Amino acid sequence: MRVVVTGGAGFLGSRLVKALLERGSITTSGGDEAEIDEVLVADIAPPAQPFAADKRLKTRYGDFSEADAANQLIDADTAAVFHLAAIVSGEAEQDFDKGMRVNLDGTRQMLEACRHRANVPRVVFASSVAVYGGDMPDVLDDATPLTPQTSYGTQKAIGELLVNDYSRKGFIDGRALRLPTVVVRPGKPNAAASSFASSILREPLQGEEVVCPVSAKTGVWLLSPRRVVACLLHAADIAPKAWGESRSVALPGMTVTVEEMIAALARVAGEGVAARVHFEPDPFIEKIVYGWPTRFTTERGEIMGFRADERFDDVIEAFIEDDLGGSYVG
Amino acid sequence: MRVVVTGGAGFLGSRLVKALLERGSITTSGGDEAEIDEVLVADIAPPAQPFAADKRLKTRYGDFSEADAANQLIDADTAAVFHLAAIVSGEAEQDFDKGMRVNLDGTRQMLEACRHRANVPRVVFASSVAVYGGDMPDVLDDATPLTPQTSYGTQKAIGELLVNDYSRKGFIDGRALRLPTVVVRPGKPNAAASSFASSILREPLQGEEVVCPVSAKTGVWLLSPRRVVACLLHAADIAPKAWGESRSVALPGMTVTVEEMIAALARVAGEGVAARVHFEPDPFIEKIVYGWPTRFTTERGEIMGFRADERFDDVIEAFIEDDLGGSYVG
Repeated sequence: MRVVVTGGAGFLGSRLVKALLERGSITTSGGDEAEIDEVLVADIAPPAQPFAADKRLKTRYGDFSEADAANQLIDADTAAVFHLAAIVSGEAEQDFDKGMRVNLDGTRQMLEACRHRANVPRVVFASSVAVYGGDMPDVLDDATPLTPQTSYGTQKAIGELLVNDYSRKGFIDGRALRLPTVVVRPGKPNAAASSFASSILREPLQGEEVVCPVSAKTGVWLLSPRRVVACLLHAADIAPKAWGESRSVALPGMTVTVEEMIAALARVAGEGVAARVHFEPDPFIEKIVYGWPTRFTTERGEIMGFRADERFDDVIEAFIEDDLGGSYVG
Repeated sequence: MRVVVTGGAGFLGSRLVKALLERGSITTSGGDEAEIDEVLVADIAPPAQPFAADKRLKTRYGDFSEADAANQLIDADTAAVFHLAAIVSGEAEQDFDKGMRVNLDGTRQMLEACRHRANVPRVVFASSVAVYGGDMPDVLDDATPLTPQTSYGTQKAIGELLVNDYSRKGFIDGRALRLPTVVVRPGKPNAAASSFASSILREPLQGEEVVCPVSAKTGVWLLSPRRVVACLLHAADIAPKAWGESRSVALPGMTVTVEEMIAALARVAGEGVAARVHFEPDPFIEKIVYGWPTRFTTERGEIMGFRADERFDDVIEAFIEDDLGGSYVG
């Protein structure tokens, strides 16, 4: 059967694609394990690193926020859709219309395309802790209301509401995961306000000086790329009944402050590497990031079998192994 | 200045229109009290009772869920928009596409039309307690998450998110009121699942037998038409700063069970009138209504100056006065 990964050329998407091809099977809405004969990657552009050759892999590059484009991705043989495509937080804040078009309309078109299939696809929607904001408790839990203070968070909260209603109506078999900040992202800094959380580790490990735009005490609620991919796959395996009245779940994560990240960097790669981080506050980034929650209890996610990383040092070591070919610039 | 009332030919809308014309002024986003020189009613069809003649009153009937139509309602001189237009809960559940088009797209088009005006209009959005649902606490409060279990509730929750984000961005000066069930509605039963809560009072007072589709112990969280209109007007008077980080508020109301309503009916109009209510469960209505919350604490709304009715008997008496010309069939 076909599995569609929107945003599949992105760094998380491309790892998910690799993991799907390795696993070779997907749980269908009927609960059966079906062989994957096609992984269809839909994204605005090809991946930074070309995909390894695999005859099951198909790619389509372009804008999929229009109805016709979404309809062409999903066919009667589509068992699952991982909907990761999105305009990131900083860009959605600066270009409101683009964020609405891709993050809201694009999600809706994808849901509509799924709705009109005879076989109801399982849909895994990547939401975000950016759905929280404003006046929040010190420690958030599964009963914390969604009160986004960014357009990105608003669009993700709306996506969750739609995934829930489409699932309740039986149009899709959806599940929405509130992803913590993903650390360490490979590649270059992007327009996400959370970009610093990866930059302050990634750049120093490659011998580059880096500016941290937020204070050393800033906490980040995070999950590693390895764990996010595992959670996305796990989400598609869980039976519909296990979700109860909500198709949303906050993923487990760990709270690490910027100074704890730098200390871990020093432990893993040495003080010299850690000394490449410098502080220079950026009010635009600070305003967004300080509005994000940093501490959670995620009982529902844990009961459902989602797992966070155990040690932050491991997260850095996994990055060196997965993205830096096993070595760094000391 | 112009005041726009979408859904202005509906029963709440037409009372609001009357109240606006009587008051003659509106608080602008600048905080000034400005004279109303036009109340523009936009609705799908004319009101059941024609409006009293008033040279300030303008009407436009048709479908306003398209961009062009919304743009034609709101001009540079528009001080406030009361957005009441909606497909009701029962109909939005049975015709998903119509509900999405009017309740979601229509709201978005209205917000977009406001956004592109030099003077930022104050927008009062009628949300609903249908935004709550599923696994809820016994008594809901201002921190209860929005977990709708109907398409109508989903569309209203999305409307609240949009009103909040458009306000945060400075595109509008919005405020979203979560209305309790409005009792007593005049006229005929409608496709709202809550229609029974008015029918069991309205029909007996007019000499008609009526079937109640839910059990006598069913609680209803309600507000009278008089109080709803007062709350809508009050919402437009409150300064932007008083809203804090959220433009949403749950309105105060009162919890009354069906049997308490019937007892009040007997006190106000006699046992013979109350005996016209008969019970015949309707599983479709029960499923929706039993999912609605019935008890709230509404501290935020009270602090902001919104007020509920004090006695349910008064609600019935006001209905007799306002809608039955002061008399009923005993």
